[in-house]
Amino acid sequence: MTGREFDNKISKTIEDLSDPLTYNLVCHEHRLGEPLPSIPKLQRIIELVREIIFPGYFGNTSLRPNTTRHYMGVYVDELYELLSQEILAGMCFECIDEQVGRAKEYTIEAKETATAFIEYLPEIRRKLVADVNAIYLNDPAARNVGEVIFCYPAIRAISNYRMAHKLLELNVPLIPRFISEMAHSETGIDIHPRAQIGESFTIDHGTGVVIGSTTIIGNNVKIYQGVTLGAKSFPLDEEGNPIKGIPRHPIVEDNVVIYSGATILGRITIGKGSVIGGNVWVTQDLPPDSKVVQSRPKEITFTDGSGI
Amino acid sequence: MTGREFDNKISKTIEDLSDPLTYNLVCHEHRLGEPLPSIPKLQRIIELVREIIFPGYFGNTSLRPNTTRHYMGVYVDELYELLSQEILAGMCFECIDEQVGRAKEYTIEAKETATAFIEYLPEIRRKLVADVNAIYLNDPAARNVGEVIFCYPAIRAISNYRMAHKLLELNVPLIPRFISEMAHSETGIDIHPRAQIGESFTIDHGTGVVIGSTTIIGNNVKIYQGVTLGAKSFPLDEEGNPIKGIPRHPIVEDNVVIYSGATILGRITIGKGSVIGGNVWVTQDLPPDSKVVQSRPKEITFTDGSGI
Amino acid sequence: MTGREFDNKISKTIEDLSDPLTYNLVCHEHRLGEPLPSIPKLQRIIELVREIIFPGYFGNTSLRPNTTRHYMGVYVDELYELLSQEILAGMCFECIDEQVGRAKEYTIEAKETATAFIEYLPEIRRKLVADVNAIYLNDPAARNVGEVIFCYPAIRAISNYRMAHKLLELNVPLIPRFISEMAHSETGIDIHPRAQIGESFTIDHGTGVVIGSTTIIGNNVKIYQGVTLGAKSFPLDEEGNPIKGIPRHPIVEDNVVIYSGATILGRITIGKGSVIGGNVWVTQDLPPDSKVVQSRPKEITFTDGSGI
Amino acid sequence: MTGREFDNKISKTIEDLSDPLTYNLVCHEHRLGEPLPSIPKLQRIIELVREIIFPGYFGNTSLRPNTTRHYMGVYVDELYELLSQEILAGMCFECIDEQVGRAKEYTIEAKETATAFIEYLPEIRRKLVADVNAIYLNDPAARNVGEVIFCYPAIRAISNYRMAHKLLELNVPLIPRFISEMAHSETGIDIHPRAQIGESFTIDHGTGVVIGSTTIIGNNVKIYQGVTLGAKSFPLDEEGNPIKGIPRHPIVEDNVVIYSGATILGRITIGKGSVIGGNVWVTQDLPPDSKVVQSRPKEITFTDGSGI
Amino acid sequence: MTGREFDNKISKTIEDLSDPLTYNLVCHEHRLGEPLPSIPKLQRIIELVREIIFPGYFGNTSLRPNTTRHYMGVYVDELYELLSQEILAGMCFECIDEQVGRAKEYTIEAKETATAFIEYLPEIRRKLVADVNAIYLNDPAARNVGEVIFCYPAIRAISNYRMAHKLLELNVPLIPRFISEMAHSETGIDIHPRAQIGESFTIDHGTGVVIGSTTIIGNNVKIYQGVTLGAKSFPLDEEGNPIKGIPRHPIVEDNVVIYSGATILGRITIGKGSVIGGNVWVTQDLPPDSKVVQSRPKEITFTDGSGI
Amino acid sequence: MTGREFDNKISKTIEDLSDPLTYNLVCHEHRLGEPLPSIPKLQRIIELVREIIFPGYFGNTSLRPNTTRHYMGVYVDELYELLSQEILAGMCFECIDEQVGRAKEYTIEAKETATAFIEYLPEIRRKLVADVNAIYLNDPAARNVGEVIFCYPAIRAISNYRMAHKLLELNVPLIPRFISEMAHSETGIDIHPRAQIGESFTIDHGTGVVIGSTTIIGNNVKIYQGVTLGAKSFPLDEEGNPIKGIPRHPIVEDNVVIYSGATILGRITIGKGSVIGGNVWVTQDLPPDSKVVQSRPKEITFTDGSGI
Repeated sequence: MTGREFDNKISKTIEDLSDPLTYNLVCHEHRLGEPLPSIPKLQRIIELVREIIFPGYFGNTSLRPNTTRHYMGVYVDELYELLSQEILAGMCFECIDEQVGRAKEYTIEAKETATAFIEYLPEIRRKLVADVNAIYLNDPAARNVGEVIFCYPAIRAISNYRMAHKLLELNVPLIPRFISEMAHSETGIDIHPRAQIGESFTIDHGTGVVIGSTTIIGNNVKIYQGVTLGAKSFPLDEEGNPIKGIPRHPIVEDNVVIYSGATILGRITIGKGSVIGGNVWVTQDLPPDSKVVQSRPKEITFTDGSGI
Repeated sequence: MTGREFDNKISKTIEDLSDPLTYNLVCHEHRLGEPLPSIPKLQRIIELVREIIFPGYFGNTSLRPNTTRHYMGVYVDELYELLSQEILAGMCFECIDEQVGRAKEYTIEAKETATAFIEYLPEIRRKLVADVNAIYLNDPAARNVGEVIFCYPAIRAISNYRMAHKLLELNVPLIPRFISEMAHSETGIDIHPRAQIGESFTIDHGTGVVIGSTTIIGNNVKIYQGVTLGAKSFPLDEEGNPIKGIPRHPIVEDNVVIYSGATILGRITIGKGSVIGGNVWVTQDLPPDSKVVQSRPKEITFTDGSGI
Repeated sequence: MTGREFDNKISKTIEDLSDPLTYNLVCHEHRLGEPLPSIPKLQRIIELVREIIFPGYFGNTSLRPNTTRHYMGVYVDELYELLSQEILAGMCFECIDEQVGRAKEYTIEAKETATAFIEYLPEIRRKLVADVNAIYLNDPAARNVGEVIFCYPAIRAISNYRMAHKLLELNVPLIPRFISEMAHSETGIDIHPRAQIGESFTIDHGTGVVIGSTTIIGNNVKIYQGVTLGAKSFPLDEEGNPIKGIPRHPIVEDNVVIYSGATILGRITIGKGSVIGGNVWVTQDLPPDSKVVQSRPKEITFTDGSGI
Repeated sequence: MTGREFDNKISKTIEDLSDPLTYNLVCHEHRLGEPLPSIPKLQRIIELVREIIFPGYFGNTSLRPNTTRHYMGVYVDELYELLSQEILAGMCFECIDEQVGRAKEYTIEAKETATAFIEYLPEIRRKLVADVNAIYLNDPAARNVGEVIFCYPAIRAISNYRMAHKLLELNVPLIPRFISEMAHSETGIDIHPRAQIGESFTIDHGTGVVIGSTTIIGNNVKIYQGVTLGAKSFPLDEEGNPIKGIPRHPIVEDNVVIYSGATILGRITIGKGSVIGGNVWVTQDLPPDSKVVQSRPKEITFTDGSGI
Repeated sequence: MTGREFDNKISKTIEDLSDPLTYNLVCHEHRLGEPLPSIPKLQRIIELVREIIFPGYFGNTSLRPNTTRHYMGVYVDELYELLSQEILAGMCFECIDEQVGRAKEYTIEAKETATAFIEYLPEIRRKLVADVNAIYLNDPAARNVGEVIFCYPAIRAISNYRMAHKLLELNVPLIPRFISEMAHSETGIDIHPRAQIGESFTIDHGTGVVIGSTTIIGNNVKIYQGVTLGAKSFPLDEEGNPIKGIPRHPIVEDNVVIYSGATILGRITIGKGSVIGGNVWVTQDLPPDSKVVQSRPKEITFTDGSGI
Repeated sequence: MTGREFDNKISKTIEDLSDPLTYNLVCHEHRLGEPLPSIPKLQRIIELVREIIFPGYFGNTSLRPNTTRHYMGVYVDELYELLSQEILAGMCFECIDEQVGRAKEYTIEAKETATAFIEYLPEIRRKLVADVNAIYLNDPAARNVGEVIFCYPAIRAISNYRMAHKLLELNVPLIPRFISEMAHSETGIDIHPRAQIGESFTIDHGTGVVIGSTTIIGNNVKIYQGVTLGAKSFPLDEEGNPIKGIPRHPIVEDNVVIYSGATILGRITIGKGSVIGGNVWVTQDLPPDSKVVQSRPKEITFTDGSGI
């Protein structure tokens, strides 16, 4: 291949890739001066919230009783600035052209939303303290609360969920979903920010857990790794697209335990106090205090002599 | 422990660890001047391809209509250089000693392979646009295409797969596998680059999905988290080693849906239009339009009074 | 909202967040001068051990036969310093107030523990060489040993496990758990450092694997992604807290194979040579050479016409 | 010192440091949402301009003839965004409270100024090409033009000066001074951005060169390290403050050479073609073609026997 | 050169370089666990002090009236920890073997010294406010105090000097000198931390300024770039080594101005109110209100026709 | 300004900047695959050499007697790889088109040159030990040798010079000059790598020192800040370009001391044992043991009442 052939091939490809017809659907067009969501800033936001909620565990701090207030002040201040920016970026990301002129209103709205979120932080801490305590009490392998906060992926996933859920309630676009996915990538736990989850919630190990967007979970629920609270099917509209916003995920009442790998699909209700064994497939309502497990496996003899 | 005792222990251990007999099998001996695969460069390659395919979403860019061509040109240029280096590194990694002298031929081959990959980028974009669209239409929780591209791990996993698959077709060693594993670590979705996957492919949530190396998947297939398309067993050669390259993973035909946690093993065929329920174990062919679910779970009464 | 209102809201929130009553349970109070566990240092420790065990694969080195000893010396030296610090940090993290004065004894103990760990490195290498070999022989898709070491998440998870297990045997607090979680986040494989695992251990793909703290695994065992070796239930003490330290996870004997998604719970024994099919739920002992698979799925006809 | 004493001392100091009376003069009060000048962004701006002017020398690029246009496009685009931000930050830095509401006008003005600067880049390149050529021809030690561009601090200082000077002409506050100081710190050459410097300007070595704000330099001037073109004294106003804006630095006409360490002070004129020897002190006009050197040093005999 | 020859040459060199006889004088032997001075930590210390002294100018902060106290608290806290560590590192660096056992006393002493330094910060701020004001009033080119703080290298050099001087008064070894050199490298201004400098001190431009260790400078002194306040000669002891600690640098009384490039050597006194012209060489006392300038340069005719 | 006007202006400027006629002289055209000199790699090379020469002072090491050899081995190994690359990059930078095909020969030559440099390291250490010792003995303010190595800019400048000088002797293009400029930027000391400098060389403070390319300096010479050893003038060839390679800088014989700010120009000889006072201008030979100082400054009365 000569240099010229090479150049021609590359140039031709650049032309092809620059043809708007090929990328129209998958291109995000940037408006001048408009902020883009920033992954490093979102990571810092999550880190700040974790450090505010669990003082002394995250961040690079040396918290002591008489320094706590200073750190809280500085963390909240930094959080406010970053969150305002990212909320604004989320709003711009989804806005359509005729909304572009409203930059100033958007900026004010973003700051008010950030303030409302910050005001809610004490309530988030109250809930997470209960979650931490529940996880600690539910795991004989946990030596102390500190180990739970520091090492358990569930805490990271539930923290991000409680943050993202509040931001969604405050009508912030895109950012809540992003925060959920960051926990998903870090822990393998995928909780949709729209799900409603009660108090003292426990996830153990957690890899592969999926909690869909219209799920409702009561108090004192415990679920293990690989549990799916999903949608069985969903109605399509006249054009064949899924209809948005219809409840299609389970309701899990108080004090339910769901063992690893169970798949629970559709808008069904798992009655309070139920125990669901691992690897079962549940698509119908279960009354309170149900205990269901998989049918007994069958013993077999292999005929091909090489494993299973 | 005195300082001398300490020094002796440490020195002794260093000696032990430096004994070639103990590391022969697990050592990669570097030849002077030979490039090693570089994880940061591979990460940059993936980032570049994502930004080229989905303009304006990844990277740190401010894409606008009249800047697109410039960005495409610069991204392709950087991609070309990095990819040539990493392909060469992959070739060197697997080459045996008598091939070492062929550095120059290898370099030329690496550049030609990188060029061929770049020429294929428009086709990768075409396929990924279809994948994005399929995912968007299949998920009522998705608010817009942008959210899918920006937040959905499936897009990251499928992008890496389509990249890695092409590189494997171009006979690049090691690098395709590495690119797959980077998506695996990031998303929990493990697609072997040798698998053959059709168009408009959807993965939802995705953690725990495994798609083995000889799998063949048709068009419009949708799979959920935790689905395994795996090998049941494999024949051994006379020395007891597994025989490489024998088809041993499923064929999944067009329009199949597989719910979470299903395990489908062996060179069997799932007929087109079939729906596989969650958590089932399938090791035999299914005719088209099959619908299978797990046997109904049994209700039990616990005798030990403590959960399950 | 005026600037003053904003300031009042933020100030009020900072006051609330600084109230010790709200964070007592979830605060780690730092003692002046006491080291905190450092995630970057722990990551470096893991990287160093990987590079020492598998010379030439990790780190930024250009290992050649006559440079190996130098690199081993420098890596061991850096490992010693970092590990001493992190062991000390782990000890301080869990110590209670009356132990604080013992900084000097703790420092000496931390160094001795680090030395003992380093002396054990040749044995860790011996075991990991066997694990690598087993994984290579068990996977027809693996082209060579190098690909296994470089790309397979199982190697990362098992390396961290073998490291963390030894540190736990040496009574290091917190750090072993942290090292496990780092592999868990990276690979989706969650092995408790207290588990006992034999030689030539194979995990394939691995996402979602959970191996509980009192599990005992024999030699030549192979498990696939999504397998849980967990606890079924656990007795509570008089105050309703779980009793710590009771064996509650399975014993898996030599030469067992467990396919993806199987859930095996409680202190039961899976007899040697058994094969467990995917997605089964096992809560009772299995004799040697058992082969169990899930009951055959049932075929169904969907009445709602929309999937499943 | 007890812990309490320590805490009291530190707390007392924090109180003192937080007393506005002690920092009023030296505090920059930040208005919410207002951008601060960013040193990393300014460094990137300088890097981008250097790379645009001297293609292929700076930045991380692999410029080739058919990639130049793409790189220029991307660099200019990035420069435009960063420069708009920093110009705005400079405007905000100096604005007084009643101007704060004008954020939108400021934003538009900042963008227009950035555009005007970019339009001037070809002229900056034309001037710098002449400067490079002059430096090359004036230094027998320079092997080629590339060495001059890559290694000579004068190029860095003059580039920054020509950039900063244009920004000052465009009425950008603060930022031009900052850009000058970055070159000053890097090279020891301190050129005030307000100085007027002609074409084909040469500085050799350069450490310690100072060119004051009202200096006027003609074409083909060459100065060596340590040369000061400074102000002798300046009139004070009625309150004893220096009166701003009065010409108080030298005029250096075409083709002048000034050797190292010469100090030339006040609004005097060094006539064209003059040569000023090293270390002289000049405070009066010199006619064209003057040649002045320091008085001959005197020989001495030391009486203290220890050096000088 | 064969591979073996190469290896031999390199190995031989490593042997030579490892021979203690060749590096005895220039080796710093590290004691296990002993902290080394850390340049990044010292840079952070300097940044913190600058941000504490000049709130809102340095660091990445968004200071507002009601956040100042929080930031002061957090900065002081971080400063305390880092400074304690670096003071300890400085003490260890110079300690001789028999002092090694005193780690605990050293640690306490380091913390007390750090506390004493922090208590002195308000006084450092008071002095630097006066310096800033003096520089602003002395430079017609300065537009406002903010520009002086943000851009003028003199502020960086004088800040570091006032910091380092206090640390030296507190008997901290090595670290003060290091802090001085960091300003020297950044600004070209070299002030020995032992020098005594009065209030309202001004340096303009500053590159090349040297202020020796026994210099004494009064109030309201202004010096320009390239000024040396140095030692003329120094007595040797019986072994020919310089005798340490003898006053050997100038005393510069109040209200003196020294123009660029002047060299003032030896323990002489420049009487108050004097003005020293540029480039002069002064080695004898000057009475108050002296005005001295260099002898008039001579005009010459060049005979070689080529410049000077 | 409308968006379209803006786009037109920017596009027009990009066109102008992409016109090869405007950048021909100042463009470095990159050949595919050819390495560019890398500033971070050169910085690492300098750091490695400093750490090899002065064990325990630079880098992040914890050198102890029984770890020295390991560190030397690893540092030399890393140095070899980086230096080979940078030497090759320097060779490519200056090569003209017809030389491009010789990549392989160039690579071999670069490696041999790197080896030769490494073999010379013990001699560089021997010389630098003498320099350190001389500086320590010459400065009453130095408390110990460690302070000199750690803090004195002269050591950094002389180290880089001795490195760069050897590389120039080995005919490495560009890189030696770059290494000199890195020290120049860091310290303000500008020593041309071609200069010849004897043993036990001392520079005090150093900012502004310039030592030209054909300078020859004997043993035991000491120079202060701001000293220029420069060229007075240089003959031009027939086309008016300076003739390269003609001796035009001073010869400074053994045991000479030159005080701050002295300017010594041309191919003159400063006889051994001479002492040159500060700020003098010397353009003629001085016999051995000369002592020259500036003419006595004159006292003046200012007529304008405002300083000088």
